[in-house]
Amino acid sequence: MGLGVVAELVRLGVLSSTSDHASVVSINLFIALLCACIVLGHLLEENRWVNESITALIIGLCTGVIILLTTKGKSSHVLVFSEDLFFIYLLPPIIFNAGFQVKKKQFFRNFMTITLFGAVGTMISFFTISLGAIAIFSRMNIGTLDVGDFLAIGAIFSATDSVCTLQVLHQDETPLLYSLVFGEGVVNDATSVVLFNALQNFDLNHIDVAVVLKFLANFLYLFLSSTFLGVFAGLLSAYIIKKLYIGRHSTDREVALMMLMAYLSYMLAELLDLSGILTVFFCGIVMSHYTWHNVTESSRVTTKHAFATLSFIAETFLFLYVGMDALDIEKWEFASDSPGKSISISAILLGLVLVGRAAFVFPLSFLSNLTKKTPLEKITWRQQIVIWWAGLMRGAVSIALAYNKFTRSGHTQLHGNAIMITSTITVVLFSTMVFGMMTKPLIRLLLPASCNAVTSEPSSPKSLHSPLLTSMQGSDLETASHSQIARPSSLRMLLSKPTHTVHYYWRKFDNALMRPMFGGRGFVPYSPGSPTEQSVHGGR
Amino acid sequence: MGLGVVAELVRLGVLSSTSDHASVVSINLFIALLCACIVLGHLLEENRWVNESITALIIGLCTGVIILLTTKGKSSHVLVFSEDLFFIYLLPPIIFNAGFQVKKKQFFRNFMTITLFGAVGTMISFFTISLGAIAIFSRMNIGTLDVGDFLAIGAIFSATDSVCTLQVLHQDETPLLYSLVFGEGVVNDATSVVLFNALQNFDLNHIDVAVVLKFLANFLYLFLSSTFLGVFAGLLSAYIIKKLYIGRHSTDREVALMMLMAYLSYMLAELLDLSGILTVFFCGIVMSHYTWHNVTESSRVTTKHAFATLSFIAETFLFLYVGMDALDIEKWEFASDSPGKSISISAILLGLVLVGRAAFVFPLSFLSNLTKKTPLEKITWRQQIVIWWAGLMRGAVSIALAYNKFTRSGHTQLHGNAIMITSTITVVLFSTMVFGMMTKPLIRLLLPASCNAVTSEPSSPKSLHSPLLTSMQGSDLETASHSQIARPSSLRMLLSKPTHTVHYYWRKFDNALMRPMFGGRGFVPYSPGSPTEQSVHGGR
Repeated sequence: MGLGVVAELVRLGVLSSTSDHASVVSINLFIALLCACIVLGHLLEENRWVNESITALIIGLCTGVIILLTTKGKSSHVLVFSEDLFFIYLLPPIIFNAGFQVKKKQFFRNFMTITLFGAVGTMISFFTISLGAIAIFSRMNIGTLDVGDFLAIGAIFSATDSVCTLQVLHQDETPLLYSLVFGEGVVNDATSVVLFNALQNFDLNHIDVAVVLKFLANFLYLFLSSTFLGVFAGLLSAYIIKKLYIGRHSTDREVALMMLMAYLSYMLAELLDLSGILTVFFCGIVMSHYTWHNVTESSRVTTKHAFATLSFIAETFLFLYVGMDALDIEKWEFASDSPGKSISISAILLGLVLVGRAAFVFPLSFLSNLTKKTPLEKITWRQQIVIWWAGLMRGAVSIALAYNKFTRSGHTQLHGNAIMITSTITVVLFSTMVFGMMTKPLIRLLLPASCNAVTSEPSSPKSLHSPLLTSMQGSDLETASHSQIARPSSLRMLLSKPTHTVHYYWRKFDNALMRPMFGGRGFVPYSPGSPTEQSVHGGR
Repeated sequence: MGLGVVAELVRLGVLSSTSDHASVVSINLFIALLCACIVLGHLLEENRWVNESITALIIGLCTGVIILLTTKGKSSHVLVFSEDLFFIYLLPPIIFNAGFQVKKKQFFRNFMTITLFGAVGTMISFFTISLGAIAIFSRMNIGTLDVGDFLAIGAIFSATDSVCTLQVLHQDETPLLYSLVFGEGVVNDATSVVLFNALQNFDLNHIDVAVVLKFLANFLYLFLSSTFLGVFAGLLSAYIIKKLYIGRHSTDREVALMMLMAYLSYMLAELLDLSGILTVFFCGIVMSHYTWHNVTESSRVTTKHAFATLSFIAETFLFLYVGMDALDIEKWEFASDSPGKSISISAILLGLVLVGRAAFVFPLSFLSNLTKKTPLEKITWRQQIVIWWAGLMRGAVSIALAYNKFTRSGHTQLHGNAIMITSTITVVLFSTMVFGMMTKPLIRLLLPASCNAVTSEPSSPKSLHSPLLTSMQGSDLETASHSQIARPSSLRMLLSKPTHTVHYYWRKFDNALMRPMFGGRGFVPYSPGSPTEQSVHGGR
């Protein structure tokens, strides 16, 4: 025992003294691989089967194999998968950028459907997968898994991979599908993380109505307070930048403030045990609606591209990381005692994922279609299949939750836990590669030439390319928003479509109260004389 | 002993299990403070005494005091000063941005003077401070310090703070002084880090001519190979982006590639035990000369501001961090046994810093002036005083080196070592606050109205505002560079000024060989039809 402790201390000492060199090596490796992914991704851009995520995943896997061979089977990864790295550094820029670049009108028009899919749908998927796992796995001898573990499996495999979705669907090609699937993905991430955390804290032996109600109340509280925090942070940044007119002195200060405030909102949410994903998503939406219009021209270009770049690097890194981590030899050694069982468990989980998603996409689409009047507004059967398929990918959120549940700081000694980890990795790799690769061809097959015409605003098809939808473009918006309000048919539309009524009153409120206070497009006078303006225009 | 080990293990265990929450709290605190620094720095912009660094330092100190009071004297900082954080994450963006934004013509014209000041000057300063420390401290009973320690003190206090220099001098107001002091700062940082590392490895008991020669050869090798690596990384990025024309598909990929290649060059240099500071600085210069002209218009605006923003955040964070770390109670408790001694040591060190810098600025300026023909080109007496004064600040490099030498992973038990750490912190705080605050008024006093006229190219005063000096502006540069070469008086200039001859041949070589291969201004056709172009112009 004494010797063991000393050996442990020596090992820690050796690790900490060589950590400098080891971390430098691994940072070099990761950055070089990231560069390779970017160049390869660019070369494969024309290819419609492979996207950047899959490239990164494959490069990561290959690197893992090479490391495995050079270290003679001792280790396959340079870094152990760390939840901290994922939740603190990689996820926030991705989700913030998604909120920042999302087409707000499209998103809010489908808000009810998105929430339905994201919250209720995830619950349905969670129950389907959990019950399926209980029914099937309890008959297969796979170690000590209790009810809590099965419910955790449900939560883990209900988390779709919104990062991968962003890469297979395109905002400009299929705006409705993009906003539905991606919006659902964000709410879904939040739902499954909240579900997972709630499951860890609740006493699962006494499930009654009170517990369920408390759970629902807790969920609603998290949803609302997270949203509120994000909106508050966004508005605060808009107010500060508008009042102080920071761009007068330095455009860098504006960009820095936007970045830091967004990140602060995420970290505050994590500190308060809220859902940082929801918070930073809404912070991004509010920032693109108000703050972005208050900054100088060069800050606008910079934030737009800098946020997208950071998100892009984080995404690529994430897939690289998951690819390299997949071959983690420790868990596979445990699982390799029974390869048949491991494969069958992965196959069953994949099947449950397919069934669990089908169990809510088709019924909820039916429900959603009941509220729509015109047939053009309804989600068609082909679109439903695409929605079902595009949300099948499981990604880093699943892996992070699985590591949290089934390991202790990345290591496990239990047979059942090791199998669950390897199965999660298998499901993630398989779904990302196979389902991910087939999404683009599937969309082209199911929604061939008409994919550009599929929009949820059939009454004015030209608005697809109008500045209102692409709200990041900032020049002739004022005129466009005026024409929108003053459009002759608007009264009829308001009466027939409740979401449009909400939108109309929101616009009125926005123009009368919010924009004069927080800025936003049309409410910030163009100042050609400011120093940053000059330097940008001089650069032209 | 056994109990101690167990207690230590428990402490480690507790730390690692609560690290999640603690790190979330400290990240929140730091980001909130950074936002406060930005807003306060903006409000204090008009004030000519206080700059952003000093604001951050004071906010950091105040926060340290508040934490000290709330934890009842147990701890004053949230994070222990970590060399890794400093050298791996904070320093690279600052130095890269400096290279990226530096006025290259000004820098290369003064290249000889800068190298003279940075390399020879730092050596003189190092010997002065080391000898002074040996002469004075060996008579004061301050624990066990040997020759190696005294030489290390010399290296530690020879490292000027180029970050703080960037904030007190302005490239546009005093271009010559800026390029001299800042250029010297970069070379100086590299020199003192190389000196420090060399001292750690060399056997100091047998100093002879061979050792000194080996040391000089080592230094020359480091200097040249680091520069070469940086230039190579920059050219590689230019070549890849030019050949593949990555902006065609995505502007984010270009920006990401530039960022990652720059960081890779730094980390590769660290891996190969070269000077990452020099490498990333030259990588920045090459990227701004070639790569920057190969990317799309929106990428140019983005990189220009995004790099400046990252550097700005890193700088502010650094000063905040040094301010908070300054009150580290552990070292002050050791030093508080003899407050008089601690104060006198700090005062002596400050005096040595003043003398050490004077010992090379004035003689080397004299030497440099001997090579100049016209009186307008010479460094005036007033300018020499400003150069001397502006390089007196000591900063995070000194602290990082002191921690490396006198502590083991942030902790020390030796009396002498604790005193050296507290003295370093005192010198850094005092020099940054007092010397830093007085620099701006001093410049206004010594170089009052003429400060804009002080330029090293008196033959064409209007070129101060010509695009050649502000090479980041990219439009009408081709014509400007042509007029430079075809200027009637150029032949006479070439004969009279050797640096201009070098510059002329460099331009010829650059235009004939380098630019056609690696791009650069005037060698990338403007393509108004590319998708990113459209999106930016649409955004106007």
